[in-house]
Amino acid sequence: MRANYKKRLGLLLISGLLLFLFCTWSPGTSSGVDIQPRQWGQIQKLLEGKIQDTTSGYHDIAYHIKNDVACHLAQNTCVCRADEETFHLPFSDLLVSRVWAHNIELAFLESHPDPRGVKRHRAQEYSRFQKRSYNPADVLIVAEANNPLQYPTQGVEVRPLKTIIIPGLGLKEETGSSHTVYLTATLGTFDVAATVDRVSIKGEGEKHMILSSPLLSALNRQLQFVTYTNTVFHPKTADTVQFSTDVHQSFFTIKVGHGTIPKLYNSGYQREYNISALVTIATKTFLRYDKLKDLIDSIRQYYPTVTIVIADDNEHPQSVTGPHIDHYIMPFGKGWFAGRNLAVSQVTTKYVLWVDDDFIFTANTKVERMVDILEKTTLDLVGGAVREVTGYTVTFRHTISVEEGGEEGDCLHIRNGYHHVIEGFPNCVVADAVINFFLGRTDKVQQAGFNPRLARHGHLEFFIDALGSLHVGSCSDVIVSHASKIILPWSKTDSQKAYEKFRYSSSSADSDVHKEDFYFKNRFKCMTSH
Amino acid sequence: MRANYKKRLGLLLISGLLLFLFCTWSPGTSSGVDIQPRQWGQIQKLLEGKIQDTTSGYHDIAYHIKNDVACHLAQNTCVCRADEETFHLPFSDLLVSRVWAHNIELAFLESHPDPRGVKRHRAQEYSRFQKRSYNPADVLIVAEANNPLQYPTQGVEVRPLKTIIIPGLGLKEETGSSHTVYLTATLGTFDVAATVDRVSIKGEGEKHMILSSPLLSALNRQLQFVTYTNTVFHPKTADTVQFSTDVHQSFFTIKVGHGTIPKLYNSGYQREYNISALVTIATKTFLRYDKLKDLIDSIRQYYPTVTIVIADDNEHPQSVTGPHIDHYIMPFGKGWFAGRNLAVSQVTTKYVLWVDDDFIFTANTKVERMVDILEKTTLDLVGGAVREVTGYTVTFRHTISVEEGGEEGDCLHIRNGYHHVIEGFPNCVVADAVINFFLGRTDKVQQAGFNPRLARHGHLEFFIDALGSLHVGSCSDVIVSHASKIILPWSKTDSQKAYEKFRYSSSSADSDVHKEDFYFKNRFKCMTSH
Repeated sequence: MRANYKKRLGLLLISGLLLFLFCTWSPGTSSGVDIQPRQWGQIQKLLEGKIQDTTSGYHDIAYHIKNDVACHLAQNTCVCRADEETFHLPFSDLLVSRVWAHNIELAFLESHPDPRGVKRHRAQEYSRFQKRSYNPADVLIVAEANNPLQYPTQGVEVRPLKTIIIPGLGLKEETGSSHTVYLTATLGTFDVAATVDRVSIKGEGEKHMILSSPLLSALNRQLQFVTYTNTVFHPKTADTVQFSTDVHQSFFTIKVGHGTIPKLYNSGYQREYNISALVTIATKTFLRYDKLKDLIDSIRQYYPTVTIVIADDNEHPQSVTGPHIDHYIMPFGKGWFAGRNLAVSQVTTKYVLWVDDDFIFTANTKVERMVDILEKTTLDLVGGAVREVTGYTVTFRHTISVEEGGEEGDCLHIRNGYHHVIEGFPNCVVADAVINFFLGRTDKVQQAGFNPRLARHGHLEFFIDALGSLHVGSCSDVIVSHASKIILPWSKTDSQKAYEKFRYSSSSADSDVHKEDFYFKNRFKCMTSH
Repeated sequence: MRANYKKRLGLLLISGLLLFLFCTWSPGTSSGVDIQPRQWGQIQKLLEGKIQDTTSGYHDIAYHIKNDVACHLAQNTCVCRADEETFHLPFSDLLVSRVWAHNIELAFLESHPDPRGVKRHRAQEYSRFQKRSYNPADVLIVAEANNPLQYPTQGVEVRPLKTIIIPGLGLKEETGSSHTVYLTATLGTFDVAATVDRVSIKGEGEKHMILSSPLLSALNRQLQFVTYTNTVFHPKTADTVQFSTDVHQSFFTIKVGHGTIPKLYNSGYQREYNISALVTIATKTFLRYDKLKDLIDSIRQYYPTVTIVIADDNEHPQSVTGPHIDHYIMPFGKGWFAGRNLAVSQVTTKYVLWVDDDFIFTANTKVERMVDILEKTTLDLVGGAVREVTGYTVTFRHTISVEEGGEEGDCLHIRNGYHHVIEGFPNCVVADAVINFFLGRTDKVQQAGFNPRLARHGHLEFFIDALGSLHVGSCSDVIVSHASKIILPWSKTDSQKAYEKFRYSSSSADSDVHKEDFYFKNRFKCMTSH
């Protein structure tokens, strides 16, 4: 009896152990998945061929170029030259803001010890970047005319490894003895959520499924229940699906991705804007503690409890204290954009207000107005105006565009001005870059980021890096004052002299960083600006 | 003569002044553009109606639900409960990792002074977020069957305010006496880059253009030259275009946007990986200067010149010096994620290696292996393994998914495990979250960001915020050692005791922040995990 009992206990323990191992075995696919960056799959090649067929033809029919339209088409090989001036007057350079072309490629390569090597390296890095960024949802697809297939052309999404019903599938051909459709995918499988009589299905749960029926209406009813399950995990990609009959083909994309998890800020819900709950003021300081103190005192007159974040890279940092002040000490001379990136990285409120350490808040510095426009429009960032001691107010509005340039790089175009006035906000416009006094959505400004390599100066670089991701505005009626720049030489303080010496001394190293970032990091060959 | 001369001079000056004003007048549209967040335009309403027509019908045909497929379809109202266990054994909780369901909504609202108010506020913020994120390129479009129109269904892009030729337009109907097509847009205008004889065009340069011809081939040749010009500026949106005949309609989207400016890193091009040029090591330290010193010494054994960035929020910061060390002082107790966000904000190399301040590098800590996998695959971040003093090695691999939940919020599911092995890298897998020892692409890690509100603890929150934007991997063969956690009570140092007291003391304020972030910021109602 005892031996039996021991045997049974032994078996029970072994089964328990096996069960334990089975249940705790980490779920995951054991066969490897290739995640090298790639561009062309089987279906894509098929697609490419079909597009060539559909978009060519009619070569025998003559045409007459319409120059005023054709001249606006991108050449894909931008040329580095300023716009031609339409007239030349004496002193025209003084009267008209002339546009200059800066050949970035030349400026960077001529001073580089190995121009061919760095050119090749940049091409390699860009090629990798393109392959990593490649998304099948961006590829050109042309819908064939007179196609009896009905299918979704956009808007179909599935979360990774989940299942959806594909909406809108149908076949509208002439009724006959038999109707058949084929579905093929690469990153997932097909199935049906319900079955319909008189429809035969082959390949349920596989990447290739065939449905057929003698009854067209039954097949169409069945097509309302076709499902797609993503089986090859990827956090953000797309699967190109081929949906066809024996004669016709169609292609559409199913986006595969986790979806965007929102970042909402709980800032209270009073009737009036609670600036302390909504806004953090951020600044960078260097060698100007006196000006910084003036700034803080002026802020406290109007916003006594708003948090002020200060990034400080002085060689001998002084203490900056007070309620709602967060003072961060950086290694000496780390620089302007490193300080900006640091300060912004610490903000926990919905909005961040960037100010320079030599600004002075006045009764016209109504942050509420800036909050109002960001609350009510799609803007991500709104600049204000900075009033110099002369009374002149600067908004520094610029538009920025990038023109494709082929292998040598793209062309960056920067112009003074703005795109349009904002309806409902008559003193506000939309632009691409604004002055260094702005309110921004914290999450969007953090995502855009300030390149910490830019130590001594930099401004438009932030807006260039943010191009396409920030919707930028500018309001001329929110004004901050600039502590005077016009100081007579004999009245400069020691700290003023030290600051100017550090900041404005010509540094070829600093200029090299800018050239390198434009040439290599952003891949520009040319910049035109005023 | 003098009077005449004065008159002419006067006129010349006035003309010059007018000319000056004309040429320097900032270009921009003076009529306001409405940039309030909105969802439905005229064309979208038309589209919605058509989709309803195409996707309904056949209601009289019966179907039989296929349960094993239908059960996987998202309900859009996730329920907050753990997966049902299929068996119950004694001590099963010990044998099997049980899944728990945490009702985030309940936990947060029951301790909130104004649950209805905060619920309403969250709904309001979410609604604004949805309207701001709305993109016409995500709306469902279904291609009509047997449509004589040929048109592009995806892949058409234009830079803001620029012009492109729309590829793939065509009409393939039976030849007749007259053929007419209509084009309508909202954010741009149509024109032709070339004209073709016998085709009449009405509305060139306008939002609505009509082309017609008695010759079908001539019309098709003309359609090869149709251009679209974006006229309403927006940095990132899409225009839904309607392309139709008198009988048939089609809809497609033209994406309008600046395009992505690359962020390429110039890290040299030697045969072997130059870790100092490619990688910056980042860490946060608090009350453990002794361990930090051990970490630095161990790093220097293998990587003598790699830059180490240290974020330090000690109350009484000590000096941490040495070549290639950047030491940042934060306000006291700012916390864990604020420190992580700070450290990462300062990195200028292509990759950033996150380490805790109590790690020890050994001969198995081959950063080159991590660089290799990021150079060769689409991964954005790869975790390693941390070896405890017991010899046990932890990779902390987790998968994360989000299930839609309707108005109350979504459900977050976290499980131990990974998705699949990586081909070519047998010790590496793809997951959604990994351990606190990882190498990441600096620009992608900076964009994901560490929420600076999380002061005492936090880990998975980074990966949750990054869900969908980071491709995450984990390799078990790159190992760092963890300075012992198993310390006998009588041998703890004073700093050890102080650290544990600070970090592990129960703080309801800290826990409140986590609850609030899950409920409000990320809009979850439930979390299930092991």
